[in-house]
Amino acid sequence: MNVNGTRYRTIWLAEDGRSVDIIDQTRFPHAFETVRMRSLEDAAHAIRVMQVRGAPLIGATAAYGVALAMAKDSSDNALHTACSSLLETRPTAVNLQWALDLARRALVQVHPDSREQAAYDLAARICDEDVAMNMAIGTHGLEIIAQIAKTKAPGEPVNILTHCNAGWLATVDWGTATAPIYMAHNGGIPVHVWVDETRPRNQGAFLTAWELGHHGVPHTVIADNAGGHLMQHGEVDLVLVGTDRTTATGDVCNKIGTYLKALAAKDCGVPFYVALPSPTIDFSLSDGLRQIPIEERSGTEVSHITGRTRAGTIETVEIVADGSDVANPAFDVTPARLVTGLITEKGLVAANRQAIAAAFPDRVRGAA
Amino acid sequence: MNVNGTRYRTIWLAEDGRSVDIIDQTRFPHAFETVRMRSLEDAAHAIRVMQVRGAPLIGATAAYGVALAMAKDSSDNALHTACSSLLETRPTAVNLQWALDLARRALVQVHPDSREQAAYDLAARICDEDVAMNMAIGTHGLEIIAQIAKTKAPGEPVNILTHCNAGWLATVDWGTATAPIYMAHNGGIPVHVWVDETRPRNQGAFLTAWELGHHGVPHTVIADNAGGHLMQHGEVDLVLVGTDRTTATGDVCNKIGTYLKALAAKDCGVPFYVALPSPTIDFSLSDGLRQIPIEERSGTEVSHITGRTRAGTIETVEIVADGSDVANPAFDVTPARLVTGLITEKGLVAANRQAIAAAFPDRVRGAA
Repeated sequence: MNVNGTRYRTIWLAEDGRSVDIIDQTRFPHAFETVRMRSLEDAAHAIRVMQVRGAPLIGATAAYGVALAMAKDSSDNALHTACSSLLETRPTAVNLQWALDLARRALVQVHPDSREQAAYDLAARICDEDVAMNMAIGTHGLEIIAQIAKTKAPGEPVNILTHCNAGWLATVDWGTATAPIYMAHNGGIPVHVWVDETRPRNQGAFLTAWELGHHGVPHTVIADNAGGHLMQHGEVDLVLVGTDRTTATGDVCNKIGTYLKALAAKDCGVPFYVALPSPTIDFSLSDGLRQIPIEERSGTEVSHITGRTRAGTIETVEIVADGSDVANPAFDVTPARLVTGLITEKGLVAANRQAIAAAFPDRVRGAA
Repeated sequence: MNVNGTRYRTIWLAEDGRSVDIIDQTRFPHAFETVRMRSLEDAAHAIRVMQVRGAPLIGATAAYGVALAMAKDSSDNALHTACSSLLETRPTAVNLQWALDLARRALVQVHPDSREQAAYDLAARICDEDVAMNMAIGTHGLEIIAQIAKTKAPGEPVNILTHCNAGWLATVDWGTATAPIYMAHNGGIPVHVWVDETRPRNQGAFLTAWELGHHGVPHTVIADNAGGHLMQHGEVDLVLVGTDRTTATGDVCNKIGTYLKALAAKDCGVPFYVALPSPTIDFSLSDGLRQIPIEERSGTEVSHITGRTRAGTIETVEIVADGSDVANPAFDVTPARLVTGLITEKGLVAANRQAIAAAFPDRVRGAA
């Protein structure tokens, strides 16, 4: 999407045709800088220190990391070493493993003399497929926004609330939950986004606000506490979020606090949609609350926060009383009964086992 | 309650019998300092800059401000000037107006020679009545906690979630929502409190965590987003909050985000109680959502936060992307249908018009 009027993806091949450029996401929201990756080590570092984050973008970066390794040494040994070292950077990232398995299986069949080009082609394909999937989600979600827009007075925006960052910065482009929003905005449908701050890591205030602002989408940052009040007073037409994992029955695991917004949406009669590429559906699970383990992250994410001082420096400050314990569950599960629908690359799917199975018959067979 | 093992109220007469000491709440959570008020101006300053906050404490401070003024000049003119200047410090604080009306009406009937003593007596009485009311709330709320404790294995704590600060720091002592918690803890019932951070002003992490910690009550600070997840997993036995204003029909206006916790409590079968002194009930209102105006506060409360740097200095940092709009509604309304009960100084009252009217017949007649 646009940054200061220029079209960007989160990762792209540099002009030299070999190096790979990324946006340094550790500098958000107060600086926009790009980083050039010239080696396997650069790619591993970028993933490890979270210069890139978001499952699809991590996978794409890993694929380019393999290509950078093959450019230096295209032997079988170098291929395996590259995949192993990249896999270690974020051990629990599902897309990382998926992209590296794909690269390893594809490239081991290619003669070493052709591996460099094949690896770059594969990385580019992974990126383009992510973009295509998000655009398909965007197209289907756009219909929902367009329907709501028809009920509005001319010029009156469709008010969409989102939580965390399911934006283009987490993908190669477009994002998942943001794809319909960008398409509506680009297509001239007035939209306004309520951006949940998303404590404790503040991905809403840091990332979603940044990307919407730079693309020119009207938005307002709110404390996570405010969404229910806004829904009670008719200020939200639609809640639109992403997901980290959704069960075969439609239970949605997403950033902590999503469940509270789903409850308020239900109570206030506001539609609650989840945008997701179908690989995010875990067909082995049928009960999100019982079966999805919730990561407990460091309490320092709650007790400390980093921002910009009046002097313009970046500083971390402590914001919890001394000696208090802190707990930090990172995700919660929204039961399918609270989900109006899933917006997938195949179209709108109801959040229940039958509808999901009907939309993705190959995946169901794969899991059986 | 206790601070470092010493018993404190939030406001008390100094040893000289004339000056008045307060805890400087602007320094929380990273410093504990008391301030001596020696004049009307000191009291007005303390209220204005929020060295004291919380409706009951503001009222008590204003009453002592009048006493300090009378100690210097006990004329009718000085009395009216004192009341007027104190009223201007926080124009919308209901308890401030109530305490000043009480002082003015009582003292104007007293001969100027006796006014100083009468003013100090009145301020002391206002403080003691606040303490007595909170202790009555505590006694009634304690029964609820004690009942839950009976269902627990020996030593297993009753887990209570609270939002914002309805603690002793907002009152003269005990607090409202915290009074039952302190009484349970003091009485040997094991309790553990989940303390909502309470964005954007962080009264949970700054004040509630501080006061529970200094009194020795086990507690854990969480992001506001986490409460629903904890309730889904049986980690919360009881939600206990305060209120800024409750309607004659039991709709509860409280700090923004309270409604989301009430929804989760309902969804998870967790009892949701509101602790309140009966003066907080507004018998002129019957529909909280439509009739209670919600204060929209400065967006800088969301976009900026103050904490302690690693170097130990206090610093304010900006935590929202440049150029993003910010909205900051300060309160929300929890409909009576989500409230298990009101814990008042008269006992437990159901959140509906009939039960509230039956508990406070004099107030209903006053409003009619």
